[in-house]
Amino acid sequence: MADADLQPKKSKKAVKAKSPESEALLLALAENRVAIEGVEPEIDGGRFAVKRVVGEPLTVEADIFCDGHDEIDAALIYGPADVDPSKWSETSFEFVENDRWAATVTFDRPGPYRYSIIAWRDLYATWRDEAKKKRDAGKLTDLELIEARELVTKAAGSGRGSKADQRGLAKLGERLEKLAEKGDADGQYALMQSDEAVSLLHAGGVRTNLSRYPGNVPVWVDRERAAFSAWYEIFPRSQSGDVNRHGTFDDVIARLPDIQKMGFDVLYFPPIHPIGSTNKKGKNNSLTPAQEDPGSPYAIGSKDGGHDALHPELGSFDDFARLIEEAGKHGLEIAIDFAIQCSPDHPWIKEHPEWFDWRPDGTIKFAENPPKKYEDIVNVHFYRGALPSIWYELRDIVLFWLNKGVRIFRVDNPHTKPFPFWEWMIAEVRKVDPGAIFLAEAFTRPKVMKRLGKVGYNQSYSYFTWRNAKWELAEYLTELTTEECADYMRPNFFVNTPDINPLYLQTSGRPGFRTRLALAAGLAGNYGVYSGFELCEFLPVPGKEEYLNSEKYEIRAFDWHAEGNIRDDIAFFNRLRNDEAAMRDFRSLAFFNFWNDQVLYFGKRTKDLSSYLLFMVNLDPHHDQGGHFEVPLWEFGLPDDGTIRATDILGGDTLTWTGKVQHWWLNPQDRPYAVFKLTR
Amino acid sequence: MADADLQPKKSKKAVKAKSPESEALLLALAENRVAIEGVEPEIDGGRFAVKRVVGEPLTVEADIFCDGHDEIDAALIYGPADVDPSKWSETSFEFVENDRWAATVTFDRPGPYRYSIIAWRDLYATWRDEAKKKRDAGKLTDLELIEARELVTKAAGSGRGSKADQRGLAKLGERLEKLAEKGDADGQYALMQSDEAVSLLHAGGVRTNLSRYPGNVPVWVDRERAAFSAWYEIFPRSQSGDVNRHGTFDDVIARLPDIQKMGFDVLYFPPIHPIGSTNKKGKNNSLTPAQEDPGSPYAIGSKDGGHDALHPELGSFDDFARLIEEAGKHGLEIAIDFAIQCSPDHPWIKEHPEWFDWRPDGTIKFAENPPKKYEDIVNVHFYRGALPSIWYELRDIVLFWLNKGVRIFRVDNPHTKPFPFWEWMIAEVRKVDPGAIFLAEAFTRPKVMKRLGKVGYNQSYSYFTWRNAKWELAEYLTELTTEECADYMRPNFFVNTPDINPLYLQTSGRPGFRTRLALAAGLAGNYGVYSGFELCEFLPVPGKEEYLNSEKYEIRAFDWHAEGNIRDDIAFFNRLRNDEAAMRDFRSLAFFNFWNDQVLYFGKRTKDLSSYLLFMVNLDPHHDQGGHFEVPLWEFGLPDDGTIRATDILGGDTLTWTGKVQHWWLNPQDRPYAVFKLTR
Repeated sequence: MADADLQPKKSKKAVKAKSPESEALLLALAENRVAIEGVEPEIDGGRFAVKRVVGEPLTVEADIFCDGHDEIDAALIYGPADVDPSKWSETSFEFVENDRWAATVTFDRPGPYRYSIIAWRDLYATWRDEAKKKRDAGKLTDLELIEARELVTKAAGSGRGSKADQRGLAKLGERLEKLAEKGDADGQYALMQSDEAVSLLHAGGVRTNLSRYPGNVPVWVDRERAAFSAWYEIFPRSQSGDVNRHGTFDDVIARLPDIQKMGFDVLYFPPIHPIGSTNKKGKNNSLTPAQEDPGSPYAIGSKDGGHDALHPELGSFDDFARLIEEAGKHGLEIAIDFAIQCSPDHPWIKEHPEWFDWRPDGTIKFAENPPKKYEDIVNVHFYRGALPSIWYELRDIVLFWLNKGVRIFRVDNPHTKPFPFWEWMIAEVRKVDPGAIFLAEAFTRPKVMKRLGKVGYNQSYSYFTWRNAKWELAEYLTELTTEECADYMRPNFFVNTPDINPLYLQTSGRPGFRTRLALAAGLAGNYGVYSGFELCEFLPVPGKEEYLNSEKYEIRAFDWHAEGNIRDDIAFFNRLRNDEAAMRDFRSLAFFNFWNDQVLYFGKRTKDLSSYLLFMVNLDPHHDQGGHFEVPLWEFGLPDDGTIRATDILGGDTLTWTGKVQHWWLNPQDRPYAVFKLTR
Repeated sequence: MADADLQPKKSKKAVKAKSPESEALLLALAENRVAIEGVEPEIDGGRFAVKRVVGEPLTVEADIFCDGHDEIDAALIYGPADVDPSKWSETSFEFVENDRWAATVTFDRPGPYRYSIIAWRDLYATWRDEAKKKRDAGKLTDLELIEARELVTKAAGSGRGSKADQRGLAKLGERLEKLAEKGDADGQYALMQSDEAVSLLHAGGVRTNLSRYPGNVPVWVDRERAAFSAWYEIFPRSQSGDVNRHGTFDDVIARLPDIQKMGFDVLYFPPIHPIGSTNKKGKNNSLTPAQEDPGSPYAIGSKDGGHDALHPELGSFDDFARLIEEAGKHGLEIAIDFAIQCSPDHPWIKEHPEWFDWRPDGTIKFAENPPKKYEDIVNVHFYRGALPSIWYELRDIVLFWLNKGVRIFRVDNPHTKPFPFWEWMIAEVRKVDPGAIFLAEAFTRPKVMKRLGKVGYNQSYSYFTWRNAKWELAEYLTELTTEECADYMRPNFFVNTPDINPLYLQTSGRPGFRTRLALAAGLAGNYGVYSGFELCEFLPVPGKEEYLNSEKYEIRAFDWHAEGNIRDDIAFFNRLRNDEAAMRDFRSLAFFNFWNDQVLYFGKRTKDLSSYLLFMVNLDPHHDQGGHFEVPLWEFGLPDDGTIRATDILGGDTLTWTGKVQHWWLNPQDRPYAVFKLTR
């Protein structure tokens, strides 16, 4: 009861003089009597935002404690970043253990939010606890009851809680007074310990030594597609079905029903801008192109325009608008490439020579990403004469396409452009559309990759493409789903890209394609397929992880329903992802024991277990693999010899598993994966 | 070479309009192109200071990286907290691995410091790297050499480095020009790759995109005794040698030579203030004292004065001054108790009733620390009417004793007083004496204990007293020496205290006392002994971890050289601690394998291995224990079958150990510990 201040006294002796700065420090420190520390998640001390999507729980944990032995309480306060903290919402913290507390909130609209924590000494809870102990020991006196009435009187006058709470507290006080007048100590005690009193004093009780975490921790809330999406990548110019005819947006429109059948939700195009002719690349990246070779779409810019123009052979802006609209009708959002680089023919080179690095001989150095060379490309720079003008120009290009209906951007090589540029540009675009999504194509060092997530990228290409063994998949996924990066970096598991024809797929045959699909679509929130994968295309440039006859340098034509395609597998996984809520929570991933190093066995689930999936994937494309595995009965509160129903979702059978250890077998030719849904 | 800006160009097209706030954000972000993150050590984002002592290395690590592929460099900048950062010192970071860099500094005076990190793109290093690759491929051209000369010209005009560096750079430029005039490409290349050029451009080269970590991380530097001390605790009133005569400061002075022989460096007294008579405690904490009982010294305050007075029977302030001086001559610093609590007779109660919690019946609640009750004590509070006056009063009491020559304060129960008070008070005292040392007596929850270290305590009582098993000692010490808390919390391992008569010692006999001494003195930087321990005093209040006939409630007399004392062991360890530099670095502690769960086996060392000690301690006071153990030959770069010399410091023999596995035996009666010094 140390702060009830029932009997305030006056000093009878003057205190000593003191300096103003010493007093200012004293008062500032005294404000925060309750310690609030170890706050998670908070990225780099609040320098960067924690990421969530609409509806996804944010659980905040903190160490919260005070000197002495009194009870404390705490609340999470949060609100949109542009709303004054005094008007934020509040939700209670719950004690976990060892001075650790936790609170969970969700956000229902995309945009920037912030949160903080308040904590206080809860004198009423302390009273309840001490009074009970004293009463149990037969030592409760009138003093404690007087103190209780005082607590209620102060709460009634605190201004906290609703009007009903204030009225309720006033009435509670009156009832206590009446009981006191009657000398009914038991009655007062019982009333002060009642649920009603607990509820009223929680709502309106004075918050003694109210302390506040100094940080206002930023949270960025995305629309769900930022964390849960299935991408399909095509070169529009290869969609005519005829290698001799440049594809058009109308050709893409004609392909939409067929793509829709596979169940993707994002349709992504490499650059669709005019292509330069200087140092144009020929087939297979040759430096000796034929006249009719289309060149690499990454050599952006020609007399027909630059990053805000369309390649004339693809169609007009009207065609493009129609494509966006038609794609939407087929459940597909269009994503385009944002590749900040220029063909030597790009209009910028004449209009903005200050954006380029001119060498003493009057040339501009072409792009390199050792050992790769890009003779048809020059890079801009971002500082000196280019600061800030190119920052604006690039932002405005993104805004231009946003205005054309594109809300998803796959960004080429972002790690070779300054982090501050991305942080600023993405923030600027989000002011216009908080639903804009940026995918970072940065196959680079781990910390660089993570930094791009911190500065704002919604999704990131990952190392998945090169993780094939069971142990490395488990290790990598455990990092991605459980370490701090899970709060700011969302991987997108591409099974292949125009730049990456994985070694594994070059030798795995069709079973390996199904295996990698099952891994990407089953493990990740975001995953992607570059077209041709469904046809098990694998021919490499010999000795390299590149595709022979790459679409980057020539127009291709494919029979999208060729024998041996795995469209059914793709459709199955995309349907599963849409039907089962478990698939939407990347972080619910858990690995379980399967006693075979060639079988990856993992689960995904909703918190309430209403959607609980188990996946088994045979990593060996050449041999049958199987063995015993552990059914996570414990997650359902079942004993090791318990019984659970497992529906083989593909096979359709419903099995009954009794006991924790079961066995299964996966034939790569037949079906290299299995998916079970568990129900009690 | 992206920033050499050799051929600046002007824009030929206007850039778009933009908002001032957008531009401000752009420019602010652009300032820090190089990412600097993951900075360690930094406590709670710089909210609290990292602790070091004079001469102790501070190694700062950080992830430092930039976009693109250019070389970067970084420096640690640091200086006294009151010096403007522009005038700080600078030391180079070295690359470690995976974008991690490290730099080490030491501080030569106690006080507050700060550090930060700067990093930049190193165009010269990039040039060196690229030019070498091109030359090796036979592709170095005049362009690269022109760029090199430009780098030197800019460095010569940068204003960085000494005047000699600037002159050297100017000359380097001239030599390059001359070589260029002669068309000597090889000569220019060789000169630009020379050590001379590396050194000059390191000193004077332009720091492109100079970026700065935003934090100025606080570091508190103590004098060495804060981290390395051996405490001996006595009740001055028990130093007369006669239970019927109250000891005096002069009696303590007479004891100094004998205490000095044991080699301690801090002599600590429980409160030496006037003791109240209201509710005075009798022998063995009874509530029925005899007239002549002295009362607990923790019941501070009587008509003779309060916290700034001396208990009259101990002596005068002149006597106390003499004691401080004499103690100094015997290598002992005096530490006193700072116990913020009052006997009901304390003058404050009348002078400052606003500092106490008055109950409705006009009484003040007495102190409790359930289940312990302190009927002779009332507590002050720190808020409401006591804010800020009691804060000043308490600060001034510490300053009062500082003025009397006391620089070390053992603080009683700091966890029941507000953290902000400690943070403010300790900061205030340090302004007067940066060598003041505060030891927190807080046997409480782990996070509370750690918080006291964060807010400024130099030393902390620890859980050592209750860690007896091998696994729990290893686990606890590993936490203390390797986790983040090692940067702000320094444990003081007391083997016993007037409040704690450990169960282990109640049944261990003399061997157990020697074991616990070896553990405390061998493991910790700071350790302490409450007198009586050296006599193997163990009689408990039955069933409790308290001493029977505790000095807290009565005057005792001891025969300090009684048969069976372990003064020689104490003297040995204190001598070892002073002689061997390894003992001064608590964090150099490492545990090694001894294949016996009753033998704790650990090492301490200096970085250069010139002081390398191995300790073996038999934890079982009743049986011989021994077995095979691993000699850490690898730390000396020796193979598993290598040979090393081991001096048995107590026995005096020098052994030759060949091979990693050796064996040893410890007889608890003979000597339950062994200490070896390894030399190649």
